[in-house]
Parts: sequence; C-alpha cells; structure tokens
Amino acid sequence: MDYRFSDRVKKLKPSAIREIFKYASDPDVISLSAGNPAPDAFPVDAIRKCSEELLREQPIDALQYSVTEGLPALRDDVSTFLKQHCGIATPGDSILITSGAQQIMDLLGKSVINEGDTVVCEEPSFVGALNSFRSYNAVLKGVPMQDDGMDLKKLEGILKSDSKVKFIYTIPNFQNPTGITTSWEKRQGIYALAKKYDTLILEDNPYGDLRFAGERIPSIKTLDTDGRVIYSGTFSKTISPGMRVGFAVGGNALIQKMVVCKQGSDVHTNIWSQHVIHRFLHGWNFEEHLKNLQKIYAKKYAVAEKALNETAQSLTYRPIQGGLFIWCTLPDSIPMMEYCKKAIQNKVCVVPGNAFLTDSSKPCQSFRINYSSPADADLARGISILGRQAKEWPADQQR
Amino acid sequence: MDYRFSDRVKKLKPSAIREIFKYASDPDVISLSAGNPAPDAFPVDAIRKCSEELLREQPIDALQYSVTEGLPALRDDVSTFLKQHCGIATPGDSILITSGAQQIMDLLGKSVINEGDTVVCEEPSFVGALNSFRSYNAVLKGVPMQDDGMDLKKLEGILKSDSKVKFIYTIPNFQNPTGITTSWEKRQGIYALAKKYDTLILEDNPYGDLRFAGERIPSIKTLDTDGRVIYSGTFSKTISPGMRVGFAVGGNALIQKMVVCKQGSDVHTNIWSQHVIHRFLHGWNFEEHLKNLQKIYAKKYAVAEKALNETAQSLTYRPIQGGLFIWCTLPDSIPMMEYCKKAIQNKVCVVPGNAFLTDSSKPCQSFRINYSSPADADLARGISILGRQAKEWPADQQR
Repeated sequence: MDYRFSDRVKKLKPSAIREIFKYASDPDVISLSAGNPAPDAFPVDAIRKCSEELLREQPIDALQYSVTEGLPALRDDVSTFLKQHCGIATPGDSILITSGAQQIMDLLGKSVINEGDTVVCEEPSFVGALNSFRSYNAVLKGVPMQDDGMDLKKLEGILKSDSKVKFIYTIPNFQNPTGITTSWEKRQGIYALAKKYDTLILEDNPYGDLRFAGERIPSIKTLDTDGRVIYSGTFSKTISPGMRVGFAVGGNALIQKMVVCKQGSDVHTNIWSQHVIHRFLHGWNFEEHLKNLQKIYAKKYAVAEKALNETAQSLTYRPIQGGLFIWCTLPDSIPMMEYCKKAIQNKVCVVPGNAFLTDSSKPCQSFRINYSSPADADLARGISILGRQAKEWPADQQR
Repeated sequence: MDYRFSDRVKKLKPSAIREIFKYASDPDVISLSAGNPAPDAFPVDAIRKCSEELLREQPIDALQYSVTEGLPALRDDVSTFLKQHCGIATPGDSILITSGAQQIMDLLGKSVINEGDTVVCEEPSFVGALNSFRSYNAVLKGVPMQDDGMDLKKLEGILKSDSKVKFIYTIPNFQNPTGITTSWEKRQGIYALAKKYDTLILEDNPYGDLRFAGERIPSIKTLDTDGRVIYSGTFSKTISPGMRVGFAVGGNALIQKMVVCKQGSDVHTNIWSQHVIHRFLHGWNFEEHLKNLQKIYAKKYAVAEKALNETAQSLTYRPIQGGLFIWCTLPDSIPMMEYCKKAIQNKVCVVPGNAFLTDSSKPCQSFRINYSSPADADLARGISILGRQAKEWPADQQR
C-alpha cells in the first residue's frame, strides 16, 4: 500500500553516509568511517565479572521492568561523578538515564520543538543529532566553526533576528566531525548569549573523557545558574556503546517532561546495562580506567598523525587533543565527493563532509576520518592510500 | 528558567496512574497495579548461561555499536518463529528490532502522524500507547469494546466520517486493560474495514503467548496481503521486560522509515540483550518454555479467580484465558475513584479504569488488577480486601 508518511519524516532520507556504510561492511575495505570506540578500550573482564555477579545476586532486578527515570543508584553515581570530576552540581537539576545520548536529542526535541521552530547548531555538526531535530520539523541554522568554536558574531546574529530559536546545540570537546574544542572564552560567550536571548543550550559531551593531550576546559554546564543548559553525557565512549546508556542533566521541570516522553518512547533504559555500569563504577577504579583509555587513544592517534604527516601531505588536517575524529581537507582542485567514491574503489571508506552540513547540497572540501576503530596497520595503510589518491589525482578530473 | 514546551507535550501530564504508583513502591502495599510478568516466569538460569557464553565468546560483538535494524541473526529468529508459530509470512515485509514494543508505538507515530491526524483505538486501551500517540498530537477516537472486540459499526462510523485516520490500534489478545480477546470474525471485520477505508492497522500482541486456556486465534497480520498491518511483538512477557527487546513486522517502505527514525532516537537496541535472546532461542526449547509459562499463569490466575469468586462477590469481573490483567467493575452505587483511593489506605493498589480512556475525565466504574506479579498469598489477600471494601462501602458515601 501507499504509506502516507508524516510531513516531519517525509524529508528524512537515508543519507549519503548510509550509502557509503554499505561498503564499510566489506571485510576488504578499511573503514575509517565509523564512530566506534577502540575495541581494546572496552573493559571486557570487568564487565563480564559485573554481569556474572549481577545475574547471580540480583537476577530479577536485572530482568524485570524498572523506572523510567533510571536506576536510582546509577543516577547517584552520575551525580557524584559530575560533581567531583566536572564541577557540575546545579541545585534544582535532575538526572535522567537514557538509551544512549542519542535519546537525549530525541526527548529534548520532542519536549520543546514545535514544527518550524529553530535549532541553532555548529556547522558542520553531528548528523545523528541534526536528523533527530529534523524529525521534529525543526529549522536548522548553522553557525560556522572557527578554530576555537562557533563564530559568536554569527551566533548572535541568528539569536537576535529569530524569535523561534528553542536551543543552541554544541559539542564543545573534540567536536564531531571537526575535532574542534571550544575555548573557555567562547563557552562563556555562548552561555552569555543564551542568557541574553533567553534560549536553552544542549551541551553534548560524548568525548570529553577521551582527552589525551592539553588541559581540560570546564563544561558550559558549570556556568549554569538557572537550568538553561541541558548536559548530555554517555558511557558509550568510556565503557560500551552497545549497552546504550547515556544521561541528561537539566532543570527538574524539563527533565520531568522528558521522563513523560521517555515513558511513551521505550519505558526505561535496558536495566542490565544500568546495573552493570553501576557495579563497574563501584568495583573498579573508573579514573584509572579513563587514564588507560587516554593512553590507548594517544597511541592510536600517534599512528594516524605519523601517517598523515608522512604519507598524506596533499591533505590538510586539524590536529586534535582527544575524541574520535580527524577532519581532513582536500585542495580546491579535487572534487570531494568524487574523491570519497574513488576511495571506496581503493578499499578505504571515509565520510564525505557535506553529510554534516545543515544543507548537505552545499559545497564542502572536507571529509571525516576515524582513527580509533581500525587496527594500527590498517589505519596507516588507509591514510597512505588516501594520501596517494590526493597526490595522484588525475589532472583531467580536477576542477 | 521558564521552559517553553512544545504544543505536543504541553498536554502530557503525569497521569493518575503515576500518582498511584508512588504508593505501590511502599513495601506494605500489595500492588495489583503493575503490568509485570511473574518473577518466577523468567528463565534466569538460561539467561545467565547465555550471557556468560556471549561475554566469553563474543565480548566485542556484545559491547560495540551495532546496526539500527537489529541483530541479523535475531531478525531471522523472529521471522522463523512468526512463520512457524503464528503463520505470519508476508512477502515484502521487513522486521525491525526495537527497544521494547513501546518503541514501535513511538516510531510508527513519528512516521505517519501529522499533528491533528486521527488514531482509532479500542476504548479503554493501553495508556502507554495512547500517550505515545498523544505525544505526536494525534486525535484519539475510541471505539467501545464488546465481549468479542471492538464495536465494528462504531468503528466503521469513524472511518467513514474521518478522512484523517492514520491507523487503527488494536490489542486482539487479552487486551490491556479489559482482558478481552477479539474473535476471529471481528479480526476479519477490522481488516476488511481497514482495507475499505484504506488505513493501517497496528496490531499489538504482547500477551498472545500467555494463553493458558481456550484456542489460539490467528493474528490479523495473517490476513494481510498489502502491508497494511504493522505487527508489534515483544520478548518482554516471554523472556524479560528489563531487556527491552520488541520487534515490528511491516511493509518494507514503512519499516525503512521507522529505521531512519530509530537511528535518530536511540541508534540501535541494546546489543547484549539481542545476542542473549538469540542464544536463548537456539540453545533452549522456546516452545517448552512457553508451555511452562502458561502453566505458571494458569496457576496464578486460578488463585485470583478463586479469591474473586469467594471473597469479592460484590465486584463483577470478566474471566480471561490469558494475559496479565483482570477488569473489575463496581456496582453503580460506589464511586470508582474514591474506591481506588480507599484501597490504597487499605494497602492495596489497583489502576482506576478512567486512566485507559481517550478522555480520562469521562465516568468509569471499572478498575484493572494484575494477578501475575504478586505472590499468591498477597494476591488472594489483596482481592479479599477489595471485596470486603466493596461489600462494606458506607451507605453515606454511595452515589
């Protein structure tokens, strides 16, 4: 039959990324297109032990229905961690455990976006979040990224002229896809503008704990005095993404509305995962584990950096201090999309940069590579193939 | 700050049920208000074994990101089970693994409901589904339930007069909250009407495998020739609700749209759960397990039936052949809401029937009890307290 889809999803199409991902499952292809944590970063033994103990000691608690807000003990853990580790402790805030941080985008979208409302985002930005906002018929307005974060003049320009802005979406640490970290000055600037124009901020911080160089910069949430910032965190990059456990911190009234939406969305987050993470945070040294992760990522990034510097000089890239992604840019003469397609023929898969734009039909000379999931040898070989391909791009196919 | 919520969620309020649930967590209160499976119905040993093997043999597969559609091996299992066990095998259909069946309501709602569109539902019906549709600003139109399912004349009346109907929502087996099973004749009638007025059917079947008496009636989905029926199934009642694993079967174009929505909603369903269920379905005899469940539920229902017949003659109730719920009705003289509040004072918690209406302000003389989760002695005692309370209702508090 002819399905009459809703207006909000009619425009949602499987993106170019999804088309490219089809090739990524070919075992002969080196995938630099994923957003997966390094497999050797998973605390497998600890999870196995936590799970065995849980299923022995509390089997019914691990299998029965649970509450929508999330396991109270895990909410306490998150609260303690954020206070001690990040200086986040706003009175009047509540915590909601979600099915990955992606669900925070969905629940916040459902709670505050009316069709036609505006969401201001970094340009380029995480396509999963953008698609979630699109699915509520939001108008996305992008603010170009500079080396230290959003262009604040352009941000203010949008906030001043558009009364339908519901929130500003930002990934301040090792942004996806650019790897940019927003400076402390700009974080303060973003908060001040949100206050001036009375709008919310969704601060998405999946990668903050994966910093392997430089100094930690305080979260925007630490500036929050009136429940204006919704902080989005996750255990996907620090423990396991397959578990799908994230957490939102926000003003109590907003979190309560998101709870009602979550009730109608998936009732509660998988409770085995919540218990296992709670046990992991107590039985193991989480700070030590994070330090270990940082070592793993530093080592892997060094492999990528060496390969980029030695075998891919025709590409420019932005050095990073953490996170999962490196943003590479082609010389103007090489058409980006054709380059990415050719990379697949050469058995290397990357993500074309236009996928991260609010309007993916706009021109873009960059693409995203992930250095964390491939094995070191594949990573180096993949980058050298990309380098050679740029260096030897045929003159008759140049722009 | 003053959160400006979206129009679609402004009206969503914590329901009377949630207020009552607060009391249900009091250990002195006998909760007959839950929708939980019987704790002794969980295959704890098998799950423990499957999980241990999984985390030993495929730890990374159990912890890494996975695909939105669901674990391919589990999708195959579901397809095989539905074909062999339920006669469901529509060519052109696809299967999507979801985070519980609740997510099917959400994803279908997002995919097809425009604000102001109509969803036709049974009256009364499952409040979780109704709230999910409400969160997309659907207009809910209820069709009164008869002993063998919806009143088809009233159903046709709505379909004929309303061009904005997007789908009919039905729970044909042991409906929540009434326990009614829709007859084979009415299932055919509902399908014929959906075809005549060109609308979809959401067939929600969480309880079908919990039949402990009478003959299985084929699913509406078995009649489907053109992808008109979206079948919603779940492992919540047969394996574990805390795992949050459901499955949708529907026309490929519709499922693909739901996949895009799920991508932006929670990326994929917890992958440990999907693997464990896949291993359980292969290493254990699922048919035997279901038979064992049916025995457990028959035994528990016999306890409830005996108590209702012997200690609660002032209540009328509808006998059931499966599922989790019994629908009890008070004499007209007793005001239902006051009765339910008094039950809490008497340490018994039930769900007031108006919570399941499309308009909860309408009058209702019934309430829902759950017989599956309390221990046998509590179940009998809870029912006898309800019976005494009805029998001894003070004359000066009658209507």
